Amino acid sequence: MIRVAIIGFGKIAADQHLPAIASDSRFELVGVATPAGDPDIGVPWYGDAAEMLAAMDGAADAIAICTPPAARYALARDALQAGFDVLLEKPPTTTLGELDALEALARAQGRVLYTAWHSQYAPGVAPAAAALAGAEIDTLHISWREDVRKWHPGQEWIWDAGGFGVFDTGINALSILSQIVAVPLLVRAATLSVPENRQAPIAATIEFVGANWQAEFDWRFDAGEEWLIQITTCDGRRVELRDGGARLLVNGVDQPLEEDREYPQIYDRFATLIDARACAVDREPLRIAADAFMVARRESVAAFR
Amino acid sequence: MIRVAIIGFGKIAADQHLPAIASDSRFELVGVATPAGDPDIGVPWYGDAAEMLAAMDGAADAIAICTPPAARYALARDALQAGFDVLLEKPPTTTLGELDALEALARAQGRVLYTAWHSQYAPGVAPAAAALAGAEIDTLHISWREDVRKWHPGQEWIWDAGGFGVFDTGINALSILSQIVAVPLLVRAATLSVPENRQAPIAATIEFVGANWQAEFDWRFDAGEEWLIQITTCDGRRVELRDGGARLLVNGVDQPLEEDREYPQIYDRFATLIDARACAVDREPLRIAADAFMVARRESVAAFR
Repeated sequence: MIRVAIIGFGKIAADQHLPAIASDSRFELVGVATPAGDPDIGVPWYGDAAEMLAAMDGAADAIAICTPPAARYALARDALQAGFDVLLEKPPTTTLGELDALEALARAQGRVLYTAWHSQYAPGVAPAAAALAGAEIDTLHISWREDVRKWHPGQEWIWDAGGFGVFDTGINALSILSQIVAVPLLVRAATLSVPENRQAPIAATIEFVGANWQAEFDWRFDAGEEWLIQITTCDGRRVELRDGGARLLVNGVDQPLEEDREYPQIYDRFATLIDARACAVDREPLRIAADAFMVARRESVAAFR
Repeated sequence: MIRVAIIGFGKIAADQHLPAIASDSRFELVGVATPAGDPDIGVPWYGDAAEMLAAMDGAADAIAICTPPAARYALARDALQAGFDVLLEKPPTTTLGELDALEALARAQGRVLYTAWHSQYAPGVAPAAAALAGAEIDTLHISWREDVRKWHPGQEWIWDAGGFGVFDTGINALSILSQIVAVPLLVRAATLSVPENRQAPIAATIEFVGANWQAEFDWRFDAGEEWLIQITTCDGRRVELRDGGARLLVNGVDQPLEEDREYPQIYDRFATLIDARACAVDREPLRIAADAFMVARRESVAAFR
């Protein structure tokens, strides 16, 4: 039995981590730390993460960190140093340096570090990778649009410097893309549309190396959600992931897929890694985002309130 | 004898690479490619890099790429694929993805790829690293200030998106810092001061993880140059690199140093790597820059004309 405690109990922990842990007989939830108050989920609550890490000495094996990204590095470092295995929600850290440092620490301490990019477990992703295996890609278009007011209500941290802005959402597309495209994803150019009263972008475009490879992220979309990746291959295949990877069309034909089990699969993988004492640190989505920020042309757009 | 050709013949190639190659009996300059016209340096000139790579098949062993950074990835990729060993001026590429891809290509092709961060060879750097060995660092302050009009006259590319701006200079400090500080350099926060008519910063600050670790880069300084790294250790040592690493003071006392031989040492290292068929790819300075761009708060400052 893997005794796991959660740090950060917001929407993603409540909606996803809690049921995934409950449904996996290899895991037992043994504690939760969040400054937002006792969520009353039947396990000991701590207002302070350091207090929980101390209390969990000998009482937990692993920590899942579900706070906003800015807090994760210090929490993960402390958890690894205290001897726990660590699962990081996406994006795992605010910088590549933090992720490199955590990986080095985990390996030095013999602990498991796992970057859980949930969209990589969407049911269409592995079949899409299989459909594209061996093919040369001709065109690639990502359209990742949603209403920030619907999906990030009241989240102020996403607008801060280092808060990722629309990349907090778009990085899910990048995490899928790096799984289904075999060649390196090189950022040639990017634009960031930043509200005049904020530091992080509300919309962005990325041009990749490749004749017609682009991504568009936009948080100003209120006609439902569009989470779409369209790829054509040089030998004429059309591969289309819709609904964030929940639907896959090949040459226009819907493919039969397993049911959506993103978080159960994340915990399945975590258990496998813990069993093997192996780290799984995927830095590519964060690397692509960092490259986009570094080369981006910025434009100021209407204030967001 | 290592037959080397240069792509990009601007100030750095003329002032530094040419004499360094001429003074090293292991190297022979066999060609130069630059669209700016024949520099008349006694070797065949090509207006086009691809034309030179084709002409150098069997006639050159290595290529030194001294163009602005935006062009380097494609040139280095073509040179590696054509079977040449490659030296990259700093910063080696515009993105981390490009550098990762070049390293993977070089290793797959069995070619040498060498990221030549020239400031790492400043005479004070190795002695500074020795002076700091084993010490815990208390405070760290970088002040890297110069007049952009003096040091980058007419260079428009540095102001473009992806042109690095003041980081083109400041990354020299970061390249030194990663050599003399043993712990990872983690960016906690940064500010970029961007002229209202440009895309790249004219000044920047970086706050590193560490109680009092900061860098200040500024191109609006016209009282000479200040290229200064000041470090104090927890056991009371004061280590100060001045003049970009040309002077080292320990506890206020000037240390005897070798003469300044940055580029001769770069070519000495390149010869050693070629002899050993080994790559030397240092991505840390670029990683620190990418992290700073990703988390930076931006402020608009006076137009630069």
